[in-house]
Amino acid sequence: MRRLLNKIRKNSRSQEDGIFFEKITKILGFEPKELKYYRKAFTHRSANKLDEKGNPFNYERLEFLGDAMLGSVIAAHLYNEVPSGDEGYLTKMRSKIVSREHLNELGRDFNLLQFVESKVNSSQFGENIHGNLFEAFIGAIYLDKGFAYCEKFIQNKIIKQYVDIAKLEGKVISYKSLIIEWCQKEKAPFAFDFIEDNGQEGQKYFSVKLSINHKIVAKARATSKKKAEEKAAQRAYFAFQEKIIKK
Amino acid sequence: MRRLLNKIRKNSRSQEDGIFFEKITKILGFEPKELKYYRKAFTHRSANKLDEKGNPFNYERLEFLGDAMLGSVIAAHLYNEVPSGDEGYLTKMRSKIVSREHLNELGRDFNLLQFVESKVNSSQFGENIHGNLFEAFIGAIYLDKGFAYCEKFIQNKIIKQYVDIAKLEGKVISYKSLIIEWCQKEKAPFAFDFIEDNGQEGQKYFSVKLSINHKIVAKARATSKKKAEEKAAQRAYFAFQEKIIKK
Repeated sequence: MRRLLNKIRKNSRSQEDGIFFEKITKILGFEPKELKYYRKAFTHRSANKLDEKGNPFNYERLEFLGDAMLGSVIAAHLYNEVPSGDEGYLTKMRSKIVSREHLNELGRDFNLLQFVESKVNSSQFGENIHGNLFEAFIGAIYLDKGFAYCEKFIQNKIIKQYVDIAKLEGKVISYKSLIIEWCQKEKAPFAFDFIEDNGQEGQKYFSVKLSINHKIVAKARATSKKKAEEKAAQRAYFAFQEKIIKK
Repeated sequence: MRRLLNKIRKNSRSQEDGIFFEKITKILGFEPKELKYYRKAFTHRSANKLDEKGNPFNYERLEFLGDAMLGSVIAAHLYNEVPSGDEGYLTKMRSKIVSREHLNELGRDFNLLQFVESKVNSSQFGENIHGNLFEAFIGAIYLDKGFAYCEKFIQNKIIKQYVDIAKLEGKVISYKSLIIEWCQKEKAPFAFDFIEDNGQEGQKYFSVKLSINHKIVAKARATSKKKAEEKAAQRAYFAFQEKIIKK
């Protein structure tokens, strides 16, 4: 009987692990090796867990590690991307990219809160939980797969999607207005079409399709209409730029 | 005639490169791939150099990069080495390790000043030049060989030689006094024997041999007698510890 119970427990555990594995893989863009690091990244101190050596098992130390890894990947990116920027410029740009506000946005967009194991209700967490989980997640990637994968994730999922140097420099205030201006100049009709959905954990999301000349040119999804519009406009803008360069 | 001159120039350049290559290899503990990164790491802004694209060619941007890489390697080391330390502890320990004073000491011990290309006399540089060159050097390693080699250099040449967590925590004030205490308890005669030398660039160095029971147990070299003594005592202490563990 005990064996049977253990087997059921084991199976339900592996089923749960399977779902967790799939979700993490989707976020990462590659397969994790060991799930334990990600479990740790999403364990809140209120869960009062200890590891096999009796040390606290929660994400707080991973935040420290993730913050350092994120800082160095962004530093290398800026160093290569802006060869004319001096030390002061690089430092300022990095702190804009890894600002508390931006980290919270990233954690929220990846919906990391869905994974949290804690004894307190998630409504009691402050806004910073999103950024903290995000940093811890980066720390887990480093421990699981090493620096190169950390860099790969940050490049593909953060820098390409979120880091826009022109915008951070204040040269571009809004891609939406750039697109609208261009459409008006070209007399091309355009539209932003929205669909609202409720994500997996009750967080509201807005999907938007941007059409120009009645053809869909970009899609985006975010936690507010304004953000989704801006993301879609940015994607359309970069797609156009590429076409112009290729011509 | 011009060809001959060019050939001579080229040869004297490659001879100079050869010496530079040897010296850098000795410091790194492995061979560099491209010398240009290290040349940049040792070029002061007063040299007024530009790269092929017209951007300033000096070490200031590399300092930014090296600082970030050093920070993340030390973060990972502390994370693994002190599993019981919380986020606050890890942050505090890291800032002790990468303190301005410590970075200056490292730059001075590696004698990085010997490589500097500048239009001002080296006596005009402040004390911080040593730490700045050291950070830039780490940045050059990252660009030349990638994160893994950066980590290797920092592990072998810095952490193993300089980073002593017990001492940073204030648990051990001085290895010299630990050794003396032990010798007195064991009634073992001991001696620190010094030789003074003048390095390559006129910087004074002190070499010390620590003998216990008339047998040399450790050697060290540093820029002051006190530092050399402490380094030798620390090496002797760790060597003893290893023997005790192996027993």
